[in-house]
Amino acid sequence: MSGSATYADWIAVDWGTTHLRAWAIGKDGAVRAKAESDAGMGRLARDGFEPALLDLVEDWLGVGPTPVLACGMVGAKQGWQEAPYVAAPARPAGLQPMRVTVARDKRLSVSIVPGLSQANPPDVMRGEETQIAGFLAAEPGFDGVLCLPGTHTKWVHLSAGEVVSFQTAMTGEMFDLLSRQSVLRHTVGAGSLDPEAFAEAVADTLSRPERLAQRLFSIRADATLNGTDASVSRARLSGALIGAELAATRPYWLGQHIAVAGTPALADLYARALAAQGASARALDAAPLTLAGLAHIRATQTELSLT
Amino acid sequence: MSGSATYADWIAVDWGTTHLRAWAIGKDGAVRAKAESDAGMGRLARDGFEPALLDLVEDWLGVGPTPVLACGMVGAKQGWQEAPYVAAPARPAGLQPMRVTVARDKRLSVSIVPGLSQANPPDVMRGEETQIAGFLAAEPGFDGVLCLPGTHTKWVHLSAGEVVSFQTAMTGEMFDLLSRQSVLRHTVGAGSLDPEAFAEAVADTLSRPERLAQRLFSIRADATLNGTDASVSRARLSGALIGAELAATRPYWLGQHIAVAGTPALADLYARALAAQGASARALDAAPLTLAGLAHIRATQTELSLT
Repeated sequence: MSGSATYADWIAVDWGTTHLRAWAIGKDGAVRAKAESDAGMGRLARDGFEPALLDLVEDWLGVGPTPVLACGMVGAKQGWQEAPYVAAPARPAGLQPMRVTVARDKRLSVSIVPGLSQANPPDVMRGEETQIAGFLAAEPGFDGVLCLPGTHTKWVHLSAGEVVSFQTAMTGEMFDLLSRQSVLRHTVGAGSLDPEAFAEAVADTLSRPERLAQRLFSIRADATLNGTDASVSRARLSGALIGAELAATRPYWLGQHIAVAGTPALADLYARALAAQGASARALDAAPLTLAGLAHIRATQTELSLT
Repeated sequence: MSGSATYADWIAVDWGTTHLRAWAIGKDGAVRAKAESDAGMGRLARDGFEPALLDLVEDWLGVGPTPVLACGMVGAKQGWQEAPYVAAPARPAGLQPMRVTVARDKRLSVSIVPGLSQANPPDVMRGEETQIAGFLAAEPGFDGVLCLPGTHTKWVHLSAGEVVSFQTAMTGEMFDLLSRQSVLRHTVGAGSLDPEAFAEAVADTLSRPERLAQRLFSIRADATLNGTDASVSRARLSGALIGAELAATRPYWLGQHIAVAGTPALADLYARALAAQGASARALDAAPLTLAGLAHIRATQTELSLT
């Protein structure tokens, strides 16, 4: 072993449906290297996970087993090996990673962070629990609501380091489907959002959420009849869907401390929509949260195993 | 001319985005032949319409020009030749078909029924105005609401033979996108709907329409956690979307006479959803309405031109 310099003390892995990202972490906790590929869980068969991981991280491995801590859909039933959900309320930092027993390469010691579930109303998350752990690592005393906008936006009530409850809205996925594949695709373009039209659509939808089904085709009809600009039509679609989401999640954000962590543009959009309802929300960049969460969960595990 | 038996006295054409259907009508008004192809407006360039039509109807043509009356997206801006919308309120039977001046074959004399528009809230239809004319041909005194469920469901307030106002919901298109392409596709299957789960989802969504955004992902989560049957999940998705549509169209159906004309299964689904809200709706098969409407509009035009 002497002389054989293991490049990574451990390896952090963010493994979602469509992406695979890995970081080599040194003994000092610093990132030594990173790599990514599109070998997401969605395109891998059971026996494809180990080769996909080795493709990215092989250069970082020494002779002894290197700990790999992964999160995301890699732990789903259709993933590498199922890491069963832990029921909320739960402490993200204290989640016990599941050992992947089917990995064959002796240089790897892989564990997967389990997702969280909720019985009523039924809800699940995989990957976001790790982002939440990363958020709480920086703000351990946070008491309020963390919103993680994306394909499936999560609204998470946090208190005393625990996920108390959470709720998912499919807003991002619906926006993608409607803006790219429905009749609205001719109308909404692919560019920027008109800020006023966005604010108006959010407010209208929140004040009359029961009219949502009528609003959508109206966007198309107005453009057909009046030549409405694509940036206005796109803002109306986005505003109607985010407005509907805010209507459904009102108990989450009303009168709460709110942090929104997403891509900067999306976090800003949600923060603006909330601000217009009198709810002040802090916008954060979600990019660093997964790695921070994996590091925090690993550190907590190490502490636990020492006591 | 003598001896040359023109097979069709006139030709009726239903020309939508994805289909082209034609009927040869004899002097006695009976259907002599019919033909269809998938040469819908969506796949044709401007100069592709005439050949697509000739492909279907050439055998029915005599030497003199045969009148062809068409309806649907063929009259859209992206169609063969635009037949500009007529603003509601309007009498479907009295719509003046637009002559297609770009047709070159001397054996054809093509006209297109214009669609209807509404300024506020903005809305448009193309093709349904002809179905409505067909419905009113059979029930000229109908006073109430006609619902035409489909990709884009139309709710139409009819009185004294006129379309007073109308409203469109994209329910069918959203159901197709969500059930086939979203994360729900793993959960909702492609089979039948559980009737009880459907009724419950309609009722829940109507009583709390603001929760729609939360309901959808719940369908997936419940199936993941509890192994819910696909027929229940599918019924919940259908019920949530139809419930949201009924919430948005409540002013249309509450306390009105309602007729629902669609495919038998879909018309029945809507009639059941309405019945559960105490609104009694008659379900009709929409299949014969377009041809009946084209015949009725043609007869009305002939009368007008004789006076």
